[in-house]
Amino acid sequence: MNNFTLYNPTKILFGKGRIKDVAGEIPKGAKVLITYGGGSIKRNGVLDEVNAALQGYDLMEFGGIEPNPTYETLMKCVDVVRRNNIDFLLAVGGGSVIDGTKFIAAAALYEGDAWDIVKTYGVKMKRALPFGTVLTLPASGSEMNSGAVITNRALNAKLPFMHPALFPEFSVLDPEKTYSLPAGQIANGVVDTFVHVVEQYLTYPVNGKLQDRFAEGLLLTLIEDGPRALAEPENYDVRANLMWCATLGLNGLISAGVPQDWATHMVGHELTLLCELDHGKTLAIVLPAMLKIRAQDKKEKLLQYAQRVWSITTGDDNARIDASIEKTREFFESIQVPTRLCSYNLGADIIPTIVEQLKAHGMVKLGEKKDVTPELVEVILKECL
Amino acid sequence: MNNFTLYNPTKILFGKGRIKDVAGEIPKGAKVLITYGGGSIKRNGVLDEVNAALQGYDLMEFGGIEPNPTYETLMKCVDVVRRNNIDFLLAVGGGSVIDGTKFIAAAALYEGDAWDIVKTYGVKMKRALPFGTVLTLPASGSEMNSGAVITNRALNAKLPFMHPALFPEFSVLDPEKTYSLPAGQIANGVVDTFVHVVEQYLTYPVNGKLQDRFAEGLLLTLIEDGPRALAEPENYDVRANLMWCATLGLNGLISAGVPQDWATHMVGHELTLLCELDHGKTLAIVLPAMLKIRAQDKKEKLLQYAQRVWSITTGDDNARIDASIEKTREFFESIQVPTRLCSYNLGADIIPTIVEQLKAHGMVKLGEKKDVTPELVEVILKECL
Repeated sequence: MNNFTLYNPTKILFGKGRIKDVAGEIPKGAKVLITYGGGSIKRNGVLDEVNAALQGYDLMEFGGIEPNPTYETLMKCVDVVRRNNIDFLLAVGGGSVIDGTKFIAAAALYEGDAWDIVKTYGVKMKRALPFGTVLTLPASGSEMNSGAVITNRALNAKLPFMHPALFPEFSVLDPEKTYSLPAGQIANGVVDTFVHVVEQYLTYPVNGKLQDRFAEGLLLTLIEDGPRALAEPENYDVRANLMWCATLGLNGLISAGVPQDWATHMVGHELTLLCELDHGKTLAIVLPAMLKIRAQDKKEKLLQYAQRVWSITTGDDNARIDASIEKTREFFESIQVPTRLCSYNLGADIIPTIVEQLKAHGMVKLGEKKDVTPELVEVILKECL
Repeated sequence: MNNFTLYNPTKILFGKGRIKDVAGEIPKGAKVLITYGGGSIKRNGVLDEVNAALQGYDLMEFGGIEPNPTYETLMKCVDVVRRNNIDFLLAVGGGSVIDGTKFIAAAALYEGDAWDIVKTYGVKMKRALPFGTVLTLPASGSEMNSGAVITNRALNAKLPFMHPALFPEFSVLDPEKTYSLPAGQIANGVVDTFVHVVEQYLTYPVNGKLQDRFAEGLLLTLIEDGPRALAEPENYDVRANLMWCATLGLNGLISAGVPQDWATHMVGHELTLLCELDHGKTLAIVLPAMLKIRAQDKKEKLLQYAQRVWSITTGDDNARIDASIEKTREFFESIQVPTRLCSYNLGADIIPTIVEQLKAHGMVKLGEKKDVTPELVEVILKECL
C-alpha cells in the first residue's frame, strides 16, 4: 500500500427532511448567497424549503450556473459576492453548481487574475469563503471533496483544480430530492460515479485490500441499484444507495494509498468541450475503449474486476478481461447511455482535434503510469467509433 | 436506510516514516504533553522519533497510562496538564493511551467533577484540549473517532463516552511501528476490530448496501490478513491492511445509516472489570454465544454474513447460520484467542456478578432493538462456558 494523507472535514446531513438542518450549520448573522443552476429547484420546491430553513438570515440568490460551469458566468457571481460582502455561499444543485460555487468561493478572496487558480491546479490560492451544499443530483461527488472542474470558453479549456479550503462545510443529501430528476440525468450520474470508482480501482495492484473491496462494493451497488433507480424513481432506498455511492465514490476514501488513472476523465472533458456532450456520456464512450487498449497494463486488476464485480470465472485471462469490458459496456447501454461515438453522430473527423486539445492543455502524460500519450489517445478514440 | 449525520475531521497520516510529519500539524509555540503507556515506546524507538520530530517545541511527558485506563491515573495527568498550562496533547500508543488522552483533554477544561463527563456519556462536556495521536497498536479505532472507554476502579465501572470535540486533530498510522508488538496483542486487535465491525453489521437489514459491502470487505480482509500478521510479522502490506481495517472499522463510516448492536462490548467490559481479561479476549468469548442466542433476531443478516463472508451456501437457514457462527469461533481460535470462559479458568460462578454489574451500570436494554436484558445476558453467558 502507498503512503497517504486523508482529511475530509465535510459534515454530511443525510436523509429525509434534512434541508431544515442547514440553519444549524451556518453562522448566525452571516450574509448568505444561494447559488443554483437552471431553476429546477424553483419548480420542485427545494428553493422554497431552503429559504424556509434560513429564515432570519440575510439572503441573496444567484441563478444560472450552467452544466460545465464557465469562468465567464462564475466571475459575474464573484462580482455579486464582492459587492455585497457575502460571508457564506450555499450551493443548491448538482456537481456543476457545487463546482462553480467552489470556484466562486476561491475567486472572491483571490487577488490577481482568478483564472490562475484553475491554471495552477489550485496551487496559487490560499483560502476561500466558507460554503455548504444541498445536493440535488448524485453524480460528481463534489459535495464531499475539495475539487472542481471549470470551463473557460474564451480559452477553450475544461480543467480541474483542488485545494483543502474547498471542502464544503456541510452537505445535505436528501434522496427524496432526486425523485423529480429526468431519467437521463440519473443515468449519467450512475455512469459518472461508476467511472470515478474505476479510475481509482482499475490500475495496478498495490495490495490495498480495503480500497479494492470498497471500490467493488460501490460498483456492485451501482450495478444493482442503477437500473432500479430508473425503473422505480420513488424507491427511497434505491435513491439513497445511489446518492451515497456518488459521495463515497469520490471523497478520497477509495483512492487513499492506491494509484489513480483519470485518463478517461481528461479525454472526456475534451469531448465535452468540442462536442457539447454530457460529461457522463463522454465517460461511457471513452471507458470501454480505454480499458480495452490498455488491458495488458491493467491485467491483474481487470481479472480481479471480472471475478469480483461481474462473477466471470471461465475462459482464459484475455477472455475474462474482454468479457468484463463487454459487461461494462452493456451496463452503460442498459441504462440508455450509448457507448459509441457514432451513437451521438460523431465520427473519426473529431479525433485529431481532441488530440490537439489534449496537447494544448498539457494533458500529454495521462494515467496511473503517465504513459497515456496523445498518440495512444488517438488509438483509444478510434476504438470508440 | 436510516437518516444519519457523518462528520469526521481527523487527518490521517498513513505510511512509512510519517512520524516526522507531526510537527506540521501542531501549532508552533504549543506546549505539548506526550502521553504514553507502559514504556514500550521507549524501548522500540518510537518516543525518540517523536521527540526528534518535535524539536523546538516545549515538551513534557506523562507515562504509565494502563490498559483499560483508569480515572485515577488519568486525573493525575489532568493535574499535570493544568499546572503546566499544556496546550496540546500527543497520545503515543494504542487504544488505551488514546482513550485516556481523550478523557484528559476533556477533563482538563471541565469545571466540576470530571467523572460527570463519563457518567453523562459526554453530554455535560463542551470542549477539550486539542490532541493528536501516534498509533502503535491497531485495534480500538480510537485514532479516528470521538469516543473513549474509561475505567473507574473506585466505582467498579468501565464506561464509554463520546463528544465531537474528541476527534484527534491528526493520527499517524505507520504500520512498521507495529512490527515489534507481541503476537497476543496483534491477535487481540484483530478480534477487537472484527467485533467492532460485527456490532455495526449483524443487526437487521435496512438496505444500506454500501454499509454492508464495506463491513464485509473489512471482515474478509481481517480473515485473510489477521493470521498472516502473526505468521509474517514484518510483512508491510499485511500490517498496513490490518491497521487501516482497525481505523475504518470504527470511524463512523460503516455505522452511518444502519442499526448498531454493541451488546457484546457492554458485556465484555463487565468481564474485563471483574476478571481482568483483555478486552479482545472478552469479545472472543461473548460474540459467538451472543450470535447463537440471538440468531433468530439477526437471521437475515446472519444469512448474508454466512454467504458473503464465509461462502457458506449449502444447508437450510439454521444450518448456514450455525456454520457461520462456528466459523467465527474457529477464526478467533485460529489466531490463539480462546472463545470459552473455561479456557481462562472461569466458570458459572461469575455469571450472577456480571449480571448484577450490568444492572448497576444501567446496561439493562442492550442491542439494536434494546431487548437484550440482564436475564438474556445470563442465558448468553451460560453459552460461553
